[in-house]
Amino acid sequence: MTLLTLFSPAGVLVRSAPLTLAAKRLKALGFDVQIDAAARARHQRFAGDDDMRLDALHRIAAAAPSIAMATRGGYGFTRLLDRIDWKAIAHSIAHGTRWVGHSDMTTLQLGLLAQPKLGADAITWAGPLAADDFGRSEDAGGVDEITRDCFLEAMSGALEAVGFRTEPGFDGLEARGTLWGGNLCMVNSMLGTRYFPRIKGGVLFLEDVNEHPYRVERNLLQLHQAGVLDAQKAIVLGEFSAWRKAPHDRGFSMKTVVAHLRTLTKTPILTGLPFGHVPTKVTMPVGARVTLLVDGRNVLIGWEHRHAGGPAHDHVHAHAAHA
Amino acid sequence: MTLLTLFSPAGVLVRSAPLTLAAKRLKALGFDVQIDAAARARHQRFAGDDDMRLDALHRIAAAAPSIAMATRGGYGFTRLLDRIDWKAIAHSIAHGTRWVGHSDMTTLQLGLLAQPKLGADAITWAGPLAADDFGRSEDAGGVDEITRDCFLEAMSGALEAVGFRTEPGFDGLEARGTLWGGNLCMVNSMLGTRYFPRIKGGVLFLEDVNEHPYRVERNLLQLHQAGVLDAQKAIVLGEFSAWRKAPHDRGFSMKTVVAHLRTLTKTPILTGLPFGHVPTKVTMPVGARVTLLVDGRNVLIGWEHRHAGGPAHDHVHAHAAHA
Repeated sequence: MTLLTLFSPAGVLVRSAPLTLAAKRLKALGFDVQIDAAARARHQRFAGDDDMRLDALHRIAAAAPSIAMATRGGYGFTRLLDRIDWKAIAHSIAHGTRWVGHSDMTTLQLGLLAQPKLGADAITWAGPLAADDFGRSEDAGGVDEITRDCFLEAMSGALEAVGFRTEPGFDGLEARGTLWGGNLCMVNSMLGTRYFPRIKGGVLFLEDVNEHPYRVERNLLQLHQAGVLDAQKAIVLGEFSAWRKAPHDRGFSMKTVVAHLRTLTKTPILTGLPFGHVPTKVTMPVGARVTLLVDGRNVLIGWEHRHAGGPAHDHVHAHAAHA
Repeated sequence: MTLLTLFSPAGVLVRSAPLTLAAKRLKALGFDVQIDAAARARHQRFAGDDDMRLDALHRIAAAAPSIAMATRGGYGFTRLLDRIDWKAIAHSIAHGTRWVGHSDMTTLQLGLLAQPKLGADAITWAGPLAADDFGRSEDAGGVDEITRDCFLEAMSGALEAVGFRTEPGFDGLEARGTLWGGNLCMVNSMLGTRYFPRIKGGVLFLEDVNEHPYRVERNLLQLHQAGVLDAQKAIVLGEFSAWRKAPHDRGFSMKTVVAHLRTLTKTPILTGLPFGHVPTKVTMPVGARVTLLVDGRNVLIGWEHRHAGGPAHDHVHAHAAHA
């Protein structure tokens, strides 16, 4: 059985039920689920104080389970950055651990990518969070099937690409580079520090939640003014969800934000990636070399296997078919 | 009469009344008030499109009034950064213009400070915004007297220091350096770009509004991880206002944020500066050399005159007396 450890690196689990439900469902999917001893810890708004959360991180890195999935995001990794044993994290990856999550997990994922000379040992997985995605009650819609299936195939090593539909205008685009990114606020929260990975020619994916488009635009402009956008081969936008219109927006929206950014950088900005703080999300390898291909409005982001055996050309998660 | 021009560099003036009221009150205070032609312009959520707002900025710089005060903040300067004629702004300052405001104005103020070799021609004024501070209706409390008096003395050139009370523990502290800072979100929104001023040994002041303490802490940690906090002689915190507690904060607060930061940097972090998105705020010269002195719990931030005649030792705005 595949050992899957659940841990809480950031925000406190306000309720215990979603974690219990997630563990039950992940067991039913065939995983040997282990809940880290401190996963339900509480200190202020955190899942345990900094020492506890850091200990959990290093404990899991040392145990090197097949999968290490965060229970939820929130705020927390930023406080740990200066004390993380990056070599221990990389070591666990070399031994087969797939670190999975999004939101605050972006901080761990990019901090690791910013460490020099790790190569494939810096690859982590942008994907579901246990409580948010596998702990969603049936009343709230239960587990999203695409999220579940894509995660399962990614973890088994079978998945080699994700697909989705984008806007017209990118037919024939081909981009090859390092896949990186995650939550926009977290990406920007590392700018100017040694934890911001200096990736040239990459494929940068971004999402956010509860951020008005003017804040999204300000963050994207900062990335532009920092030279980050121009240095990429492609930018892929996921979902920007749960923000509220202001009465004086008068036409200002995510659409105008994307249109404005497109006037500033020549790097193609694609929308439509099923990723973010929404039920349907793909699982993708952060730090891996990927090839992005656009055929008509169909986008394919493909990567090479690392731990899996041979190629598995039929394992492409074409979200377009479901959208 | 002293010419005071009001302009809108960022967010749209949703209502016209506060600007009209501000102009009337500033006239009554003895200023020759001019409202820029585009101050009431509207484009989406902005006070005119980028070209209009940029034209207004350069028009005012060319006219070089004694005072150029923003009507309000919002979001807008970030979009203009790459197109601002910094020499024109510096030129207006050399001719006596005092640019005044806070919030989004921080972007202009720090962007100017980041320009090389401007010296005193990069000095602007952190202080009131016309609509927010001079346009407040009588029902909402009217104009704050301290804000008004401090602004008047700063603009006349008479003011040479501001004072306030801080927490115990800093008695005898003395710090000399460049005063800089402003709105924390805006300060951080420039990190990693060429608009972030690389100031060593400065006195950094910060405030914010509508930001939960966890977001304030994340921004402060970013400044720390970027090496900015350690490089300063002192950090002075203004008001962090209008945020809402979350049920799971459980003791996490601005107090714990400040306490945590104090464990990470040796730079003294003082609280209590009357500045921010609150009625009572001092007016201070951003980019000026200041001396910060603490006597017991009384803090004095003093600067040297530039345009005024001789020293005026009685013109100290000791907010402590009012607090």
